[in-house]
Amino acid sequence: MESAIPKHLQCPRQRSRRVEEGYLPPYPAYTARATPSVAQVVMGYFGVQSKGADAHGKATAALLHIAHSFRAADGPGHHDLAHVIDTAGYDNRVAIAYWSDRAAFARWWSNSGLGAWWQADDRMHDGLGYFREIASPRVQHYETLFNTPDRLEGIGTIMGGISDEIREHAYWGAARDRIPLSQTDALEPRRSRAIIPDPSAPGGRVRIAGHENVTIIRSGQEWTETVGKERELYLQRMEPVLREGMKFLCERGETIGCYSNRYMRHIDAAGRLLEKTFGLSHWHSLADMESWAESHPTHLAIFGKFMQMVQELEFRLSLRLYHEVSTLKADEQEYEYINCHPETGMLKGLST
Amino acid sequence: MESAIPKHLQCPRQRSRRVEEGYLPPYPAYTARATPSVAQVVMGYFGVQSKGADAHGKATAALLHIAHSFRAADGPGHHDLAHVIDTAGYDNRVAIAYWSDRAAFARWWSNSGLGAWWQADDRMHDGLGYFREIASPRVQHYETLFNTPDRLEGIGTIMGGISDEIREHAYWGAARDRIPLSQTDALEPRRSRAIIPDPSAPGGRVRIAGHENVTIIRSGQEWTETVGKERELYLQRMEPVLREGMKFLCERGETIGCYSNRYMRHIDAAGRLLEKTFGLSHWHSLADMESWAESHPTHLAIFGKFMQMVQELEFRLSLRLYHEVSTLKADEQEYEYINCHPETGMLKGLST
Repeated sequence: MESAIPKHLQCPRQRSRRVEEGYLPPYPAYTARATPSVAQVVMGYFGVQSKGADAHGKATAALLHIAHSFRAADGPGHHDLAHVIDTAGYDNRVAIAYWSDRAAFARWWSNSGLGAWWQADDRMHDGLGYFREIASPRVQHYETLFNTPDRLEGIGTIMGGISDEIREHAYWGAARDRIPLSQTDALEPRRSRAIIPDPSAPGGRVRIAGHENVTIIRSGQEWTETVGKERELYLQRMEPVLREGMKFLCERGETIGCYSNRYMRHIDAAGRLLEKTFGLSHWHSLADMESWAESHPTHLAIFGKFMQMVQELEFRLSLRLYHEVSTLKADEQEYEYINCHPETGMLKGLST
Repeated sequence: MESAIPKHLQCPRQRSRRVEEGYLPPYPAYTARATPSVAQVVMGYFGVQSKGADAHGKATAALLHIAHSFRAADGPGHHDLAHVIDTAGYDNRVAIAYWSDRAAFARWWSNSGLGAWWQADDRMHDGLGYFREIASPRVQHYETLFNTPDRLEGIGTIMGGISDEIREHAYWGAARDRIPLSQTDALEPRRSRAIIPDPSAPGGRVRIAGHENVTIIRSGQEWTETVGKERELYLQRMEPVLREGMKFLCERGETIGCYSNRYMRHIDAAGRLLEKTFGLSHWHSLADMESWAESHPTHLAIFGKFMQMVQELEFRLSLRLYHEVSTLKADEQEYEYINCHPETGMLKGLST
């Protein structure tokens, strides 16, 4: 049993953790570990937006063009492809890529050709929407959680290591307690997001500045290996409740500090559905996300159903679960939307 | 909006509260306020245990004898009567009395005659069981919560005042944040409860010493004033879920640090049922209680159902809700059981 916060990021606490040294979580969990040389990582979400079956071929080609660029020098250590039809009825295909070095990401962007392709006038006129949502948290500003110590997901795939069982999980507030900066900082939001005025940019190309401590979560599940009762419990009882909660965040999230949510299904390069999904949401603050998780009926239903399922299965799960939560400084966020509909991602509520 | 901790008990925090100054709870709540001259209060639970209908008359007479003694000099400022049939099938009638001054309580015990009556040999031979569970927390060691600022319950009835809307509620960990000592102390349990050896006491009279930071909660609800949809929601949808959670604590509480639980119904002096209930439970620690509340399916069901009901009613409740939570030092607890069955209160699990 060890702290989720790696030794080299521990410091004298000015803010107390919610649990004491004697606390024993009821089931194991793990966090990804990077070497101390890793200072700042990049989580890049590159999206292609289209509407209707006619556009599928073109949109998929654009997605694969992006994914192909990941093979260039300084490309990401890992990427996923995922798809969701959003509330407005648009297809959103996203390539999600992870770097353990922000400088490498910047070199890749410049040298792979993707940066130039993205900036090209053609993107304004090829009949698709594009977005990029780039989060680049310093290692003090994010945490990860896995229910198994193998086959990591998300940023965990490129961090290179895994902890022993960690103490800070299975209680409300544990995500906060796992973020190293929470030892000394309340992680409160400051200022507002805003459209970045850019007289040189055409109207359909919008960049948005994030504010201090925007919080993002990617929270996923894979049921590939589940069988029998567990598979049935997940698909018949758990997933519908999860879907309902995701729907609430999509449709009414703005009332509780959730800027954007996507409940995405992993796909392979041929567009086939994998047995993996994740929710990806952007929040005004970690506190707003905590508040939804802790007290909103839609999330209490998810959590309650999950705890019930776990107990029925006597804590033996083949279901794989993970999440990653980042509280982002203003300089750790980049958002750009090209010809996207106004409800897309961080555009939502910032009508132009 | 103010802190739940009264000004005269505020001190520089060594332990951080879970919410910041900017936090706004989604609905109002209040806490009872005493004048600064109040240092230590007494919550006295005086129980009469019997089995079967034949004993009802005798048990009720004993209960009323106890309640009658409250009228003596230095008697409590308020008392309730309540009843529950426990898991072993025994009737438990309890008179619950509140004092704002521990010295007055001690004088009353000595001078009212109840102390002598309680100690008398007759209590060993009159065919009834008796218990007293006396909690006398200093004001730093307990907190109260009410959803309305009028008609307080429990210890609140005798504290003499009520706060404005308070900040520390509607999130997990709020009860801890309302206890003044939590500003500087983790409220961790230390040592174990134990039977107090007493060679002079007959075998059926058992006293138990509590350990540091035993935590008790009385958490109640009154539906007298509810009508229509709200009454139906409470009685048909909320109460059965509450009952299920209470049953779990009664039957399996010891697996998660709950020593004892009673889900009691208020009665009047004639034994008639009132439309008020409360759960009264004793815990190994505040952390164990928090852990049940936050993550056990039975309590998540209660809380989720409640939040759903509140939202359906658009936060307009005629249902009255309150609780009081105390984390007790060893010297703030007295437990005595006379001819009670071995699953009674703090006796449970301490087989003699």
